[in-house]
Amino acid sequence: MKEKYISMAVIRRLPTYYRYLGNLEDAGVERVSSQELSDALQMTASQIRQDLNNFGGFGQQGYGYNVAKLHTEIGKILGVDTPHHMIIIGAGNLGQALAGYSSFGKRNFDVSAIFDVREEVIGKEIRGVTIQPMDSLEAYLKDHVVDVAALTVPKSAAVEIAHNLKDWGAKSIWNFAPIDLELPKDYIVENVWLLDSLMRLSYSLKEKEEA
Amino acid sequence: MKEKYISMAVIRRLPTYYRYLGNLEDAGVERVSSQELSDALQMTASQIRQDLNNFGGFGQQGYGYNVAKLHTEIGKILGVDTPHHMIIIGAGNLGQALAGYSSFGKRNFDVSAIFDVREEVIGKEIRGVTIQPMDSLEAYLKDHVVDVAALTVPKSAAVEIAHNLKDWGAKSIWNFAPIDLELPKDYIVENVWLLDSLMRLSYSLKEKEEA
Repeated sequence: MKEKYISMAVIRRLPTYYRYLGNLEDAGVERVSSQELSDALQMTASQIRQDLNNFGGFGQQGYGYNVAKLHTEIGKILGVDTPHHMIIIGAGNLGQALAGYSSFGKRNFDVSAIFDVREEVIGKEIRGVTIQPMDSLEAYLKDHVVDVAALTVPKSAAVEIAHNLKDWGAKSIWNFAPIDLELPKDYIVENVWLLDSLMRLSYSLKEKEEA
Repeated sequence: MKEKYISMAVIRRLPTYYRYLGNLEDAGVERVSSQELSDALQMTASQIRQDLNNFGGFGQQGYGYNVAKLHTEIGKILGVDTPHHMIIIGAGNLGQALAGYSSFGKRNFDVSAIFDVREEVIGKEIRGVTIQPMDSLEAYLKDHVVDVAALTVPKSAAVEIAHNLKDWGAKSIWNFAPIDLELPKDYIVENVWLLDSLMRLSYSLKEKEEA
């Protein structure tokens, strides 16, 4: 398939298109022009046309793009049409927030298990999923396919658990701990660096005050 | 100052440098070469040299960069040397996770108040900060300078509260609700799109299975 040769820069923008098209679809919008996308997403219309042309172009000159079709096609490219099994490591506030997040289901990600070391939370249920002791993680990974392990443990525990997750067969890690997990480059890790986002905010505030 | 003309692309990479240099500094590393940065950050060495030259260049040919100095200088550019006041709107799991996050203090962001509508959490304390009723938000914003309002309320409430935050004087919003806040373009909003991150993960999984 052609997809293979799409640059990472384009790939990184696809979730943005996907999210926005989903909102348009929910709002009942049927067609959208590259100019409208440009205004909403703060990219140039020509950039958008170029990006979307990578996928065979679902637009018609003068008519714009078919919202539902483009949304579905981008979803397929992103792999959202396949169900994914997710587990959560760490049932602290962040882990519980993720476990309770209904939008994952809509994207075909289902939380099938949650693990924690703390006696006082083990056995508790979040959205029908029981928190299990960390000791049972290895056995769980032997018996179940796990596409994504969301890692929300403290920084001090993250690297060791990440290596275990990889060794025991989790296919990827969604890392929320503010630390480099030091895994081999061919292992899939997606980091959520909240502090990076906060630093960008800090910069914007400074720029505005100096303006 | 020269900084004003630095492209947004460079600015968006600064938090990455800042985070990595901070880790090196914590580990007692004094000097780092562009090649070492390149290996760690998966950017080319020439890209890194170009980026860092924007700030007058803190490197010396053959000696590499002074870690502590570069870390401090990038921190200044990002505005981390100034204290910022943050409030959190929504004391659900995510809001409580943010309130308990000790790394904010290290970056000069202090959580000074938390607000929620739910009777059962009002009056509770998180890290010494009491959860206040949402009704008192307007009065609070009249009496206090608020640099950042972290918005962790449900999607359905986010747009209205965001407009209030802007009208009542919060200088910026750090948005965790999976929705476009529809604020004027000159108002500072930094969005944390967790689902976009999850979609990138989904794509990586798909690519690997097809490879």
